Amino acid sequence: MTQDTEPSDPGEARIEAPLTADAHVVFIGRLRTPFARPEDCPRQGDIEAGPECRAVLDPVYLPALQGLEPGATLDLLYWLDRSRRDLLTQSRKSDGAPRGTFSLRSPVRPNPIGLSQVRLLRREGDALVLRGLDCVDGTPLLDIKPAKCPNA
Amino acid sequence: MTQDTEPSDPGEARIEAPLTADAHVVFIGRLRTPFARPEDCPRQGDIEAGPECRAVLDPVYLPALQGLEPGATLDLLYWLDRSRRDLLTQSRKSDGAPRGTFSLRSPVRPNPIGLSQVRLLRREGDALVLRGLDCVDGTPLLDIKPAKCPNA
Repeated sequence: MTQDTEPSDPGEARIEAPLTADAHVVFIGRLRTPFARPEDCPRQGDIEAGPECRAVLDPVYLPALQGLEPGATLDLLYWLDRSRRDLLTQSRKSDGAPRGTFSLRSPVRPNPIGLSQVRLLRREGDALVLRGLDCVDGTPLLDIKPAKCPNA
Repeated sequence: MTQDTEPSDPGEARIEAPLTADAHVVFIGRLRTPFARPEDCPRQGDIEAGPECRAVLDPVYLPALQGLEPGATLDLLYWLDRSRRDLLTQSRKSDGAPRGTFSLRSPVRPNPIGLSQVRLLRREGDALVLRGLDCVDGTPLLDIKPAKCPNA
């Protein structure tokens, strides 16, 4: 488990026991974004006006892209590999108020899985070019799904 | 890895190598639905008219629910533990046409993580009562997030 080195906060409640490993995930590729550090990331991605980003797939998974069309709205799931996983409550950055982890979209959560809705612009070789991401460059990719409820 | 015992299909392309275990997930609870078997599940959950379901949390995670309010639209992530993980292409049930796994919302995918948008009705003890799920009873829960783009 990767841990931040941030000091503790009075709004934080921690899980004391180690997390069990109930199942494993495989990284299917990496997300390339212009955001080098967590503090460079926007609070939310912008599916229309955000910068072009890339989902670069491990070549073994390229056949699984068949049927994805430019313009599609996709749900991307990715692994927030820099996030600590032990906080049950945490302080919101916007107002400092302590809140339960499951009432926030903070990257800090027991299973640090990020979810963004993105717009597929085009495919370039082993990469999908898309808009709407808000994560740090190099974030491991877990899954790509067509969005159920496109918001545009 | 749990494997289905379904016969292979001409629209299927498989990953031959074993999947690497790049990170682990922890089950934070279980989803209780009226759908006992995969064939009982609706194709998509209905956030307004679907049956009442429950997300029963492991008690250690209850403090993380603080701040969730009835009526909220939530993104639930869960682990489709009966799904095989080795298919790159598969045939759509609706028309039998082979498609890439990442262009489908099929439970069969390298990381079998399900995603549903649900409506929170109320909390009852260690459970959230909600509508909108389409998964089998007992499915392990991974995460609860407030939806970014509620569709109602």
